[in-house]
Amino acid sequence: MDRELEIRLSGSGGQGLILAAGILAEALTTEGRNVAQSQSYEPTSRGGLSRSDLVVSDGEADYPLVSEIDCLVILDQVAVAASRDMIRPEAIVVTDAKTVTEPPAGSFRLAELPLSETAITLGNRRIANIVALSALTAMGGLCDRDVLKQTVLRRSPKTYVDLNMDALHAGWELAERCV
Amino acid sequence: MDRELEIRLSGSGGQGLILAAGILAEALTTEGRNVAQSQSYEPTSRGGLSRSDLVVSDGEADYPLVSEIDCLVILDQVAVAASRDMIRPEAIVVTDAKTVTEPPAGSFRLAELPLSETAITLGNRRIANIVALSALTAMGGLCDRDVLKQTVLRRSPKTYVDLNMDALHAGWELAERCV
Repeated sequence: MDRELEIRLSGSGGQGLILAAGILAEALTTEGRNVAQSQSYEPTSRGGLSRSDLVVSDGEADYPLVSEIDCLVILDQVAVAASRDMIRPEAIVVTDAKTVTEPPAGSFRLAELPLSETAITLGNRRIANIVALSALTAMGGLCDRDVLKQTVLRRSPKTYVDLNMDALHAGWELAERCV
Repeated sequence: MDRELEIRLSGSGGQGLILAAGILAEALTTEGRNVAQSQSYEPTSRGGLSRSDLVVSDGEADYPLVSEIDCLVILDQVAVAASRDMIRPEAIVVTDAKTVTEPPAGSFRLAELPLSETAITLGNRRIANIVALSALTAMGGLCDRDVLKQTVLRRSPKTYVDLNMDALHAGWELAERCV
């Protein structure tokens, strides 16, 4: 990796984006990278903007603030404005096809995917975060699939193990359709 | 609150400090505050330094980096050096009496508490994070006890509900002995 990699998972409160970012951070450190993560919480966080940012580097990574996003997930229209002007021209941007009606525009690679629809089909809207995480990591080649899988397994409550595994596989399939 | 409040929970990897900080962030937003949180992960995080920082304000709180710590938990000697020079003179510092053999020195209020020992007595070393969180919030008057309790309940896996409730109460008792 020549430079730091800046990743943002964003949407609305309650969508599990901070958890998904924490899982990605753990998976990346398993592969030897250093990761700094930040997020903010507001009193109206359920329904309001929610985001978690990762700065990944091979050296020290104590500075968690992103300024030029390389990899972006947007799960809700409310989160578009906060990132629109920070997306690098060669970035990968994954949005929810249903809830993000006006995705950001630019020269970057935009994949409008049925993330929440897939989660609902699999049985639980709440696993859209893992579908999104899986699709983004596959499209960006961010980390090894098995490392991600083991990390998701470790962080899943028992009742979510099967759902999250289904979500991972569905995300990979969505990503493959974009290639 | 006149100024931003800066809180750091620190120790070694695997002590559950990022989880504890996330719980505190949620409890504080329930009370109407804005919170920005950051943490870093290193490949050697189990055993190495681990910390999560919160910046709490009544206005916008997008900047998650602490520079002058008001409230500090140290659960492992390895974490002392990273914070030693950032502690405000009137801060509250809670350290583990057993694992932090050389706590930071200064005019601040230092409470060396049997956090890990209490956790072990309650049946599980891993709940030292909640004992510490509970003691710090009580000593600092950071948030309402019932709000903290409800947040811990919401974030506890089923197998940890009783343990974490015991940890909360034990932390409050430790804090009361320091008054």
